[in-house]
Amino acid sequence: MTRSDPVPTYSLPPENRQWLLADRPVGVPTPDNFKLVRSAIAKPQSGEMLVRNIYLSVDPAQRGWASDIGNYSQPVAIGLVMRALAVGVVVESNDANFAPGTFVYGWLGWQDYAVVGPAQVLTHFALPEIPLSAYAGVLGINGLTAQIAFNRIGRPRPGNIVVVTTAAGAVGSVVGQLARAAGCRTVGVAGSVDKTQRCIERFGYDDAFSYRDPDRARAIARHLPDGTDILFDNVGGALLDDLVRAMRVGGRIVQCGTASIASWSPAPTGFRNEREILTRRLSWGGFVIFDEKDRFSEARAALLQAIGDGALVYDEDIEDGIERAPNALRQLYAGENAGKKLIWTS
Amino acid sequence: MTRSDPVPTYSLPPENRQWLLADRPVGVPTPDNFKLVRSAIAKPQSGEMLVRNIYLSVDPAQRGWASDIGNYSQPVAIGLVMRALAVGVVVESNDANFAPGTFVYGWLGWQDYAVVGPAQVLTHFALPEIPLSAYAGVLGINGLTAQIAFNRIGRPRPGNIVVVTTAAGAVGSVVGQLARAAGCRTVGVAGSVDKTQRCIERFGYDDAFSYRDPDRARAIARHLPDGTDILFDNVGGALLDDLVRAMRVGGRIVQCGTASIASWSPAPTGFRNEREILTRRLSWGGFVIFDEKDRFSEARAALLQAIGDGALVYDEDIEDGIERAPNALRQLYAGENAGKKLIWTS
Repeated sequence: MTRSDPVPTYSLPPENRQWLLADRPVGVPTPDNFKLVRSAIAKPQSGEMLVRNIYLSVDPAQRGWASDIGNYSQPVAIGLVMRALAVGVVVESNDANFAPGTFVYGWLGWQDYAVVGPAQVLTHFALPEIPLSAYAGVLGINGLTAQIAFNRIGRPRPGNIVVVTTAAGAVGSVVGQLARAAGCRTVGVAGSVDKTQRCIERFGYDDAFSYRDPDRARAIARHLPDGTDILFDNVGGALLDDLVRAMRVGGRIVQCGTASIASWSPAPTGFRNEREILTRRLSWGGFVIFDEKDRFSEARAALLQAIGDGALVYDEDIEDGIERAPNALRQLYAGENAGKKLIWTS
Repeated sequence: MTRSDPVPTYSLPPENRQWLLADRPVGVPTPDNFKLVRSAIAKPQSGEMLVRNIYLSVDPAQRGWASDIGNYSQPVAIGLVMRALAVGVVVESNDANFAPGTFVYGWLGWQDYAVVGPAQVLTHFALPEIPLSAYAGVLGINGLTAQIAFNRIGRPRPGNIVVVTTAAGAVGSVVGQLARAAGCRTVGVAGSVDKTQRCIERFGYDDAFSYRDPDRARAIARHLPDGTDILFDNVGGALLDDLVRAMRVGGRIVQCGTASIASWSPAPTGFRNEREILTRRLSWGGFVIFDEKDRFSEARAALLQAIGDGALVYDEDIEDGIERAPNALRQLYAGENAGKKLIWTS
């Protein structure tokens, strides 16, 4: 198949390859924390379906899922398949709502085949409207997060200034484009000159700068001379602290990730922010996409519309072969990806 | 006059006593930072009025106004009258909307007489509906803050758990009672056994504990076994950090003050909270009452209704004599007051 061909035509592998969590990572998981095993393909029981996974998602949140630090979800148990989102197609089903041939996106794990129930499915569709990989990225949690969090917590108004961290990333690049379409001035923050250029040239940010600037305070003052109304933050840490201090009165902070902090045990410290919250009258909200299932359908329609209008572009960085999954996660944390990181199971 | 007599009948003093800010305090102001001077009573110019101050307000926010650290308002200049709210009566006026005899509440300063324009007046009224001192406390910024911030940022729902810091204070005691009236379970945090008892016996909290408990983590676990939906915080600092970690998913934090932190220069540090915001999906909002003038009238009506219904009680701790103002501020920070601290100019 070619990547733009939405319907997989390759033959099914005879066994299931699965990436298990082998031990508990400290901080960022490394390939050593995972173990590839081969097993027979399981049979779906009553109410279950067998899904052939096509695109496995590689997400910053996987660090948290592999960790046993308090989180919004239970950690993956050692020896079980690594938790992951994926897009696949139903090949066998005991649920009438999911006939064979239905495409599904959900908790399918880093494996070739998943036996799941409807509770593990986030969205399903008969045929993709755009290439299938998009359903694990710009139409998956990344784009849905951008669309829902930016609008619900960010509450953009035309003329607002919006600053986005990991601005060229799978979530950030969508936020920047949605903000621009909403009439906001957009400023991206990323970790390299390549990425800040991509912010401006590919994703249409009005301005961008690197958080690695040796005089970051000056960079912030230069690129945000009038401060910012909305901070869409995916990183936390000292960069967050610096940007909080550029917030305008009445500003909104969307806390969507804390990617810059490798470990929360022991608890890291930093500048106290409560006086900034008070004196700037900030509204600072935490966002977890899995709370928002009721909004997925409307949000996906808005994203498809923006893509159709040419207002929203997206990049994907797809690795061929399930064996590459752990290394892809390492690349993600190292900032080596050039778009939404996916694994084509092949 | 007796304190319950709303109309002052004493004779006017022949000169104006004024507390000036003598130098810039480091942290909590001490009486040495102020200087009492006597001067002639000024004449109101076009559009101005002369107000005889009756009750001067003593507020935690005065520390911030006296400081030159970034704040929501400009610092008081050295040598000028100390900024303060007060209730007074118009004795001479060049503004037709403020006839002599009108009561006013606003930026009248720590002095016997103030010459002000309408912009310095927060509210005015022909006759008090309850004793006049209340207009500088439970019907002034303290009660208005409680009413507006708790409802707008706290968004209480029946059955919610609400924890309040400085729970027996001028703002906190109102929040606790409003929360109870809204069908919430209320838990007060204060600094002494006297105050926690007052929380329960006087202000009707369901439970209360001291933040000075040597095993505070255990105290929080015991008094908030199911966590909390709303944190109304007036103190910031380590107590705030501990309570943030008791927030339930979707909880709301009202940041209304940072009284526990004496100085923000150098910038104090503490545990990073962004991951708590994220994983608990918190909504953390800063509140400054002076943004909310459009809501004062409705909020005051709600407070008067609650007082009339017997759902809201309030205590005042009134000092006789303007000469006591700086010491009253010291007492406030030392937690020695037993109710809203006011100065009767006498």
